[in-house]
Amino acid sequence: MTNSTDFYDILSTTRSIRRISTKPVDDEVLNRVLQAAIWAPSGGNRQPWRIIAVRDRAIKQQLSDIYSQRWSEYVDMNMKRVEGMPENIVEATRKGLAIGTQLATSLADVPVVAMFVHDPREVFVTDGNLGRTPVVGGASLYPAVQNFLLAARAEGLGGVLTTLISASENEVRPILQLPEPWGVYAMVPLGYPKGNHGPLRRAPLEHMVKFDVWSD
Amino acid sequence: MTNSTDFYDILSTTRSIRRISTKPVDDEVLNRVLQAAIWAPSGGNRQPWRIIAVRDRAIKQQLSDIYSQRWSEYVDMNMKRVEGMPENIVEATRKGLAIGTQLATSLADVPVVAMFVHDPREVFVTDGNLGRTPVVGGASLYPAVQNFLLAARAEGLGGVLTTLISASENEVRPILQLPEPWGVYAMVPLGYPKGNHGPLRRAPLEHMVKFDVWSD
Repeated sequence: MTNSTDFYDILSTTRSIRRISTKPVDDEVLNRVLQAAIWAPSGGNRQPWRIIAVRDRAIKQQLSDIYSQRWSEYVDMNMKRVEGMPENIVEATRKGLAIGTQLATSLADVPVVAMFVHDPREVFVTDGNLGRTPVVGGASLYPAVQNFLLAARAEGLGGVLTTLISASENEVRPILQLPEPWGVYAMVPLGYPKGNHGPLRRAPLEHMVKFDVWSD
Repeated sequence: MTNSTDFYDILSTTRSIRRISTKPVDDEVLNRVLQAAIWAPSGGNRQPWRIIAVRDRAIKQQLSDIYSQRWSEYVDMNMKRVEGMPENIVEATRKGLAIGTQLATSLADVPVVAMFVHDPREVFVTDGNLGRTPVVGGASLYPAVQNFLLAARAEGLGGVLTTLISASENEVRPILQLPEPWGVYAMVPLGYPKGNHGPLRRAPLEHMVKFDVWSD
């Protein structure tokens, strides 16, 4: 729950927070986190996204019902993937997923569920004809989510970038009164963490960075 | 060129920097920026991306040649879009694009050209069957670019998230010795700005944020 204003301290301890307390989030604090998201860059500065910050319990419950269904499918998929593997791997996977299940089924208790929505007409896709799934549409969208998560950490809050609910955006549409053709590109549950911030588990720099050309 | 360690000060002044000086970037400074990128979250913590930090002049020149071609098409498209509009709009568009042309044609002079590449096999797409262009693949990729840009700002450096070169990833592949099926999802030219950091022009919070449900 520690606040921090030191930049590298914040970046190096912003981990995904899935165990979130019911402690309310003040409006001024929430507004600073929202403003941070808005500072993110986007193609042509078009800012083709909005946040719908859901605090109404009934709406959070409806989102929870939809998300829980997707999450449950995700759990099944992952448990199938580790089937027959050593028991410690199966157990670690089961435990990790259980924290997500707890979050999914109790979204109504999370103070703010930030729904990130976007206008596909304003998203410029340069990798649409390469015979692979396009990802570049996200270039104008996910920097805002990252700013949001970093600012949350700065305020002693925590959250996690989730995307499973995108698959159900047409079920989400009437709940949020989201007009066509806007899409749902992320959901971030936000609140004070029950556990601690940081440290992060990440691959070392030597693995993630190459110089001049590719190398294995 | 001011450094800053105050978190909100950094976020609120990280603007896209396209006019970049030839002043070299020290290895320790570059490594801090690269490390910041690595701290970003990704789905299942798979980190399905790498940075190829290009400093070799011949390779930067080849990237410049490819990118300039795409940029030139982008200029034509945008100038066509403003055709017949009031002269001040046409002139402002021309001037804005000219800064990009200058960057595109002088990439070899930029100290570091950071090429962000990704493994499409490790990217989980939840919005692939919605009848719209998928964007969710970017959820595990662009947070790292945003961390990179913010850390650059913290170090007094500047850069800009560009994606036009993704359309030419198969021309880029042999230059970077990038194996199949890795893709190119962003290019960030990085160096000390010729101009100033911040302030940002962004839509106000009341425009970007809604509470509980959509509203116009």
